[in-house]
Amino acid sequence: LEEGEAEKVSELISELHPADMADLLESLSPVQRAELLGQIGQTLDPEVLSYLDSDLREDVSETLGAKEIARVLKRLESDDALEFFEDLSEELRTQVLARVPVTIRRLLQEGLEYPEDSAGRLMQREVVVVPAIWTVGETIDYMRSHKKQMERDFYDLYVVDPRYRPIGKIPLSRVLRNKRHVPIMDLLDEGVRSVPVTMDQDDVAYLFKQYSLLSAPVVDTAERLVGVVTIDDIVHVVEEETEDDLLKLGGVTETNVYSAVLETTKSRFTWLLVNLGTAVLASLVIGIFEATLQQAVALAILLPIVASMGGNAGTQTVTVAVRALALKQLSGGASQRFITKELLVGVANGFLFAGLVGLVAWIWFGNPLIGVVIALAMIINMAAAGLFGTLIPITLEKLNIDPAVASSVFLTTVTDVVGFFAFLGLAALILL
Amino acid sequence: LEEGEAEKVSELISELHPADMADLLESLSPVQRAELLGQIGQTLDPEVLSYLDSDLREDVSETLGAKEIARVLKRLESDDALEFFEDLSEELRTQVLARVPVTIRRLLQEGLEYPEDSAGRLMQREVVVVPAIWTVGETIDYMRSHKKQMERDFYDLYVVDPRYRPIGKIPLSRVLRNKRHVPIMDLLDEGVRSVPVTMDQDDVAYLFKQYSLLSAPVVDTAERLVGVVTIDDIVHVVEEETEDDLLKLGGVTETNVYSAVLETTKSRFTWLLVNLGTAVLASLVIGIFEATLQQAVALAILLPIVASMGGNAGTQTVTVAVRALALKQLSGGASQRFITKELLVGVANGFLFAGLVGLVAWIWFGNPLIGVVIALAMIINMAAAGLFGTLIPITLEKLNIDPAVASSVFLTTVTDVVGFFAFLGLAALILL
Repeated sequence: LEEGEAEKVSELISELHPADMADLLESLSPVQRAELLGQIGQTLDPEVLSYLDSDLREDVSETLGAKEIARVLKRLESDDALEFFEDLSEELRTQVLARVPVTIRRLLQEGLEYPEDSAGRLMQREVVVVPAIWTVGETIDYMRSHKKQMERDFYDLYVVDPRYRPIGKIPLSRVLRNKRHVPIMDLLDEGVRSVPVTMDQDDVAYLFKQYSLLSAPVVDTAERLVGVVTIDDIVHVVEEETEDDLLKLGGVTETNVYSAVLETTKSRFTWLLVNLGTAVLASLVIGIFEATLQQAVALAILLPIVASMGGNAGTQTVTVAVRALALKQLSGGASQRFITKELLVGVANGFLFAGLVGLVAWIWFGNPLIGVVIALAMIINMAAAGLFGTLIPITLEKLNIDPAVASSVFLTTVTDVVGFFAFLGLAALILL
Repeated sequence: LEEGEAEKVSELISELHPADMADLLESLSPVQRAELLGQIGQTLDPEVLSYLDSDLREDVSETLGAKEIARVLKRLESDDALEFFEDLSEELRTQVLARVPVTIRRLLQEGLEYPEDSAGRLMQREVVVVPAIWTVGETIDYMRSHKKQMERDFYDLYVVDPRYRPIGKIPLSRVLRNKRHVPIMDLLDEGVRSVPVTMDQDDVAYLFKQYSLLSAPVVDTAERLVGVVTIDDIVHVVEEETEDDLLKLGGVTETNVYSAVLETTKSRFTWLLVNLGTAVLASLVIGIFEATLQQAVALAILLPIVASMGGNAGTQTVTVAVRALALKQLSGGASQRFITKELLVGVANGFLFAGLVGLVAWIWFGNPLIGVVIALAMIINMAAAGLFGTLIPITLEKLNIDPAVASSVFLTTVTDVVGFFAFLGLAALILL
């Protein structure tokens, strides 16, 4: 596709939706990407940049250069422009700021002052505001005469008091359904939930989900209206948030399939190192029972079964617990009930698998006592998995440590140590 | 809170937002819940039901009874009503259908005919449609004179051709910004992406995310407009989808922290049973080398380290792969590059940890050869983790098997078997 006639390529590309164009750029190798960008250059649709994966933005923006970026930023909506701008290098930012009109410069600089991942970074600055004393007719006339300033589509009007604090909002359909003489205040949704500009985006997303909001006004510390967050901004936040939990539970911090081998190796190393520490701890437990193992080497064969069953049962519990915590389902009495329930589930499955594994071990090694030992160890370990699979994430959450990151390390340490100790300890007592 | 004066309770409750009321119901025990519902009875806000966790709906609907449900359904939006209705038992459905007006009955029955989790179940039936020949003025007049039929707020007008196929949509703000004489067709967004009524909701969500849609028309097999899906319906789909992957990777199928112990035990049993099979397989590999173990019991102590490091490195890769597949990032050449990259990352981390673990083992057991054996095994196993951590999910996806469910079982089987085989096999060769 890439090699060959430049004209044909740019023709094909001009027909692509900006989102598909962004996908195309993402799927290319860095060299191909630079080549393609060089070719299409000035004709690149600004929208493409807002669809681009954030890890690729740096790469693409280096290729484009400050002048081109300035051109593009002028044509994006305020929230998309800020999102792209915040990913630029310090140097490029300064260069770009020098090239954009003063109004956009001010918006970008203000935007960067809000904390990362806050409502201030998420919001759109374009809000259509009307005074409380207007009628439907006056509102329509105002909109018709200010057509040029309101290029973009919007869905709600906001009404503010004289100090610019939001009083409420009016869905556009209500303006259209009513006669010209109707006062705007009669159509108002009052008691609108305002979002402070510094609120974390996860909390904003929670408000939207909890109260099925479509949009919310964003206010500064003086409660003045500064922007509006809409539900389409929230979709990405919600997805990122859940995805974050998923990745952390899997022991990875990056989503990026495009990053380099070296970078990925480094980012995974830490997690594996922590895990090595816990694995050594488990081995130390086995080491205590070296004498026991020497007398009955069959026990070594069964060790992975004990560890694996405990680990998996615990992972199930941790997964449910981490999600329940993220969804704020474990407050007050619910948390108590959840711990009890998971403990009971662990014990129940413990008994079931004790029977099963005990039988297998008995038949395999022709010794009923080995069956008894592994059965008892299974019950103890799966009960521990249920109990600690809930207690660990809940405790971490209380200590303000992200349970998605740390829970599984702690948990497998517990199930390995408890499992090996129970199994080999009981073996030493019963078998020898 | 619950015991005591009924009046005070219902007063407190009437001030709650329906979403918070739903949360309150969820956090109560079944007995308390029934009591509270009995007390507030007729005054229950219909909206509460649409906020309720779907697992609790059955419980709550049994308590409410058919008459009360019919009252509630009449007052919900068509998509919320259908969502609640589809969770009812067969018996309750029939009773409720007999009690609702014929228009609602038809909508509910039609809705149920669409496949589960399809666009048809998600969409709203209320769409405001205007003919292509109207002007802005005629549209506004129509809306003013049909005020009663358009009780609900909406954000886009749809324009259809004479056969009721959607031609495009018009954001309301454009209608307000233009003079009465402007033809409606001048304001049209053409080339709107229609969604077939049977399309799976995950695919609908993908379209919305990919093209940043705010709403999309839903069409039947004759391409006639039957409803509209809006972005607020999609937020839940996106969250569920990612959550589903998270839970499946954790080996659980249910999110529900409210379900009973017995149910949960049963649902987790299957996964653990599969896992037991793979653990036994790993044990069989150890069994092959029983003679080797007898001569050097120290090897048994190191087994968990080999298994755990391979398992964790593989889980990291699988997690990234499952997400990348869900986000459709691994098409064509990208998949090839991803496999190569993960293999290299595995080898790189393999060498790092080989050095580290080899040193630890040497010092621990005072035998450099043990260090060499575990180091080599580590490299082999982590390379296998990188390779199979990508190949397994990608192959499963090609076979139309959900990679989130099955990948980690296959993967840990591979890393256990490869790890134990490499470690004990090399030990038999080098050490003895």
